[in-house]
Amino acid sequence: MTGNVKALVFDVFGTVVDWRGSVLRELEAMGRAKGVAADWAGFVDDWRRGYQPSLQRVRSGELPWTKLDDLHRMTLDALLERYGVTGLSAAETERLNRAWHRLDPWPDAVAGLGRLKRRFVIGTLSNGNVALLVALAKRAGLPWDVVFSAELVQHYKPDPQTYQMPPQLLGLAPGDVMLVASHPNDLAAAATQGLKTAYVPRPLEWGPAAKAYDVAGKSFDVTARDFNHLAELLGA
Amino acid sequence: MTGNVKALVFDVFGTVVDWRGSVLRELEAMGRAKGVAADWAGFVDDWRRGYQPSLQRVRSGELPWTKLDDLHRMTLDALLERYGVTGLSAAETERLNRAWHRLDPWPDAVAGLGRLKRRFVIGTLSNGNVALLVALAKRAGLPWDVVFSAELVQHYKPDPQTYQMPPQLLGLAPGDVMLVASHPNDLAAAATQGLKTAYVPRPLEWGPAAKAYDVAGKSFDVTARDFNHLAELLGA
Repeated sequence: MTGNVKALVFDVFGTVVDWRGSVLRELEAMGRAKGVAADWAGFVDDWRRGYQPSLQRVRSGELPWTKLDDLHRMTLDALLERYGVTGLSAAETERLNRAWHRLDPWPDAVAGLGRLKRRFVIGTLSNGNVALLVALAKRAGLPWDVVFSAELVQHYKPDPQTYQMPPQLLGLAPGDVMLVASHPNDLAAAATQGLKTAYVPRPLEWGPAAKAYDVAGKSFDVTARDFNHLAELLGA
Repeated sequence: MTGNVKALVFDVFGTVVDWRGSVLRELEAMGRAKGVAADWAGFVDDWRRGYQPSLQRVRSGELPWTKLDDLHRMTLDALLERYGVTGLSAAETERLNRAWHRLDPWPDAVAGLGRLKRRFVIGTLSNGNVALLVALAKRAGLPWDVVFSAELVQHYKPDPQTYQMPPQLLGLAPGDVMLVASHPNDLAAAATQGLKTAYVPRPLEWGPAAKAYDVAGKSFDVTARDFNHLAELLGA
């Protein structure tokens, strides 16, 4: 069922990198440095909860194409006000927004990708803008062969144009490309475009208290515990 | 003058890889295997000489957007007829066309890029389509952080849209991006869009008998003997 797969494309936020732990660490450091106390765990969760609604404003046409860095900044500005965080300079606010360029990979990610890269073309397929994805990869040592971003087609996942991009640009049939993601809805949308799917649950994405996704009745071509396990299952 | 440069983008055919030697080797091997004799050196030079006219047919609008793999194939079909090469199956012809996916890097390229990658974002900026550039990089071990291709903006160099792409997608000022190329006209076109320029002559690009480019009166931000020398000059 996965025998023809030539390229693996990866969702990034949550699947490859631990956005919550990484951004939380930066918020806490900023709070200490500026002497500001706030519910930083609530702040980071609200920041990420602002993500889908902000993408939807672009998908619906309410906003023209806006890259993720700028959507993150709009949400951040609103949250700083809501959480009563004041006293940040423009440069400090911009630096905080770039916390999303400095996300740590899950512990298995770099080794697993290195192993998968030997057998497959590996790339991102992310709503993150190109600058963000390149900065993230360079800092964390993610060895992508190619960076596919929603920005290149000016459509956000789960718009079909995003899933169509990797097979089109790699000159492959959709079924020769597999999306690797920790989010069942992302995988379901990829499957409607003919891509193969690999589910890698990341139970800590929303922190230690989060509920796992209910995947009863959902099917994926492969389910793996982590990227090393995925490499094993795919014979890489 | 080069102090702000954060990203280096590379012309690929001729600058990073030896297309002539590589394609010639494949033509000769195919000739031996099929028992066909022809002037293979003339064939490869004519194949490459067909490049600019075929790009021009796209730039002028005579052809709709056509990726380089397909332009290579149009030229190849004409040359097989002109050189009287017959008896290739469809699969053999397609495999021959893909010789452009299997080009060897110049001897300094992989080591030099590895060194430059430690200090800079490094990427392609090539008229090659994404599939070609990814295949090339994977086979040769070219450690790109990002693959910029004319295909992403559906304009071929030297159209301005191609040079504008890396700064726009990396979120950098044009002057923070340097084009590295062995072709003075490519560098001149990049400079009109505000990019920095590094000239790396590749005197063997057209074979041992070729004439060097006349660069009298032309100026580049940096001129380097090869990629290791470029790393040295840029402090990488």
